[in-house]
Amino acid sequence: MAAPGEPPSGRALLRSALQEISADVDRAFDTLLDIPDDPRRPLIEAMRHAAIGGGKRMRPLLVKAAGALFSLDPGHLLRAGLAAECIHVYSLVHDDLPAMDNDDMRRGKPTVHKAFDDATAILAGDSLHDLAFEILAGEETHPDPFVRINLVRALAKASGTGGMAGGQMMDIAAESAVFDLPTITRLQQLKTGALIGFCIEAAAIMAHLPSEARVGLHGYAHDIGLAFQIADDLLDIEGDAAVTGKAVGKDAQAGKQTFVSLLGPERAREQARMLVEQAKAHLHGFDERAGLLRAIADYVIERDR
Amino acid sequence: MAAPGEPPSGRALLRSALQEISADVDRAFDTLLDIPDDPRRPLIEAMRHAAIGGGKRMRPLLVKAAGALFSLDPGHLLRAGLAAECIHVYSLVHDDLPAMDNDDMRRGKPTVHKAFDDATAILAGDSLHDLAFEILAGEETHPDPFVRINLVRALAKASGTGGMAGGQMMDIAAESAVFDLPTITRLQQLKTGALIGFCIEAAAIMAHLPSEARVGLHGYAHDIGLAFQIADDLLDIEGDAAVTGKAVGKDAQAGKQTFVSLLGPERAREQARMLVEQAKAHLHGFDERAGLLRAIADYVIERDR
Repeated sequence: MAAPGEPPSGRALLRSALQEISADVDRAFDTLLDIPDDPRRPLIEAMRHAAIGGGKRMRPLLVKAAGALFSLDPGHLLRAGLAAECIHVYSLVHDDLPAMDNDDMRRGKPTVHKAFDDATAILAGDSLHDLAFEILAGEETHPDPFVRINLVRALAKASGTGGMAGGQMMDIAAESAVFDLPTITRLQQLKTGALIGFCIEAAAIMAHLPSEARVGLHGYAHDIGLAFQIADDLLDIEGDAAVTGKAVGKDAQAGKQTFVSLLGPERAREQARMLVEQAKAHLHGFDERAGLLRAIADYVIERDR
Repeated sequence: MAAPGEPPSGRALLRSALQEISADVDRAFDTLLDIPDDPRRPLIEAMRHAAIGGGKRMRPLLVKAAGALFSLDPGHLLRAGLAAECIHVYSLVHDDLPAMDNDDMRRGKPTVHKAFDDATAILAGDSLHDLAFEILAGEETHPDPFVRINLVRALAKASGTGGMAGGQMMDIAAESAVFDLPTITRLQQLKTGALIGFCIEAAAIMAHLPSEARVGLHGYAHDIGLAFQIADDLLDIEGDAAVTGKAVGKDAQAGKQTFVSLLGPERAREQARMLVEQAKAHLHGFDERAGLLRAIADYVIERDR
């Protein structure tokens, strides 16, 4: 326990921030996804099933933590975080489809196509994809249209062929090709790193930070993105499905090369630790306002789900 | 043939505009969808398969025609039209999937999931979805960020639960429920009308048109949207698959109610004609600069594909 007046430890800071962001994100999605009294009802129910009540909310948390560096408006940061979360959730819904990873469980619940059907899951993913941009375009996200359009541009890039979707395509190719470590690194930078990068970038955009001042933040995002993915790969071989809320052992089963298959678990774990230290070193120019970003870096590899 | 100096007839105007927009759209997609020399290659190839060399390009044509009312920059109009076409094409790619309409042919070619596979088709649709917003966010679309963010907001709304995706959900429900004419009208307004509405709205946004001046244009978009859908329903029962480039008879087979099943072909055709006249009446305040919009209204129900 921290003494009164002492700054809270990283763990305490993280714990309260995680609780707060989970509640904020759930409440916001509950409001945004109002169930209509017409035949579109199952579509919105499927979106709610995917978006509400689950997940670590890492991406909204990252936007919030990066925004704390510049004392940005918490409401604005939440909106940008919600947009990133919409993209993340839509990608999970599509990724879980039988035509893709064919997963039955996600966040401890049946996946959307299991709870509804494949067609509804496709449309629910597509609609969450739209919701991300609708959120960013709204005035509540930021009063300056220039900031909003820059957020839109950054998110579209992080989500499309030059980001997440491009990484997923490489991930599919990884099942039938032999990729070396640089190619796997590039794959993961696209698949998960680009959207994590957006979360940090969103705060920089809102703070009107000149590009030369963004270098450290980009480095932080890059390093925790890779560390996050290595931790995910480790959870896939060592995790407990009851805790992760999704099936484990999928990568090896699919014959996918990962950091862990290429480096072995020990070296992969060591690499993740090194990346986390490196990520924190990128924050050296910031004072205690970077406390949450530092705590997130540690959490990325300590988490069990 | 129009005599020299005489304004071209609606048909001549339409013919040259259709040729021009097809070439412009294909050329732009060819540039935007540059094939990378890495494992993302099949993704971009699938996007090109879907987006290049086919389709009537009705949506880019509508943006162009509406922009002519206000003498807007053709390059700006093309970008907004490309964004609308990206959304249209992505929806076709997902709609054709086995989990949705399960179509093998589209625009006279194998559908994307047939030419590639289901997973690639899902990702190609998702990536075209992103591309739409990436295009709108770019400075080449309009120098004013306020215009661009308004385009983003309008497109996200036209594409999501309150537009196209919502209409597709209703369309799926229409296979197992009995819908009356007002519900079918609402379904079609969402499924095809919303995106057509965006195309006209895009020009109004770029022209900074005050909302009271948009009433006639909204009326035009509403009427041709419904007429377009009735014509589609008629083509589904009377069209020639060799000309339409896709399977026909699908609606009846799926037990879907359409304007044609509810009204019968004769009254449906009459209704479409009436809507086209009404659409043109909405343009009465505009001079010969509305010539292309008038010609498009006629074309909507005269086309054979």
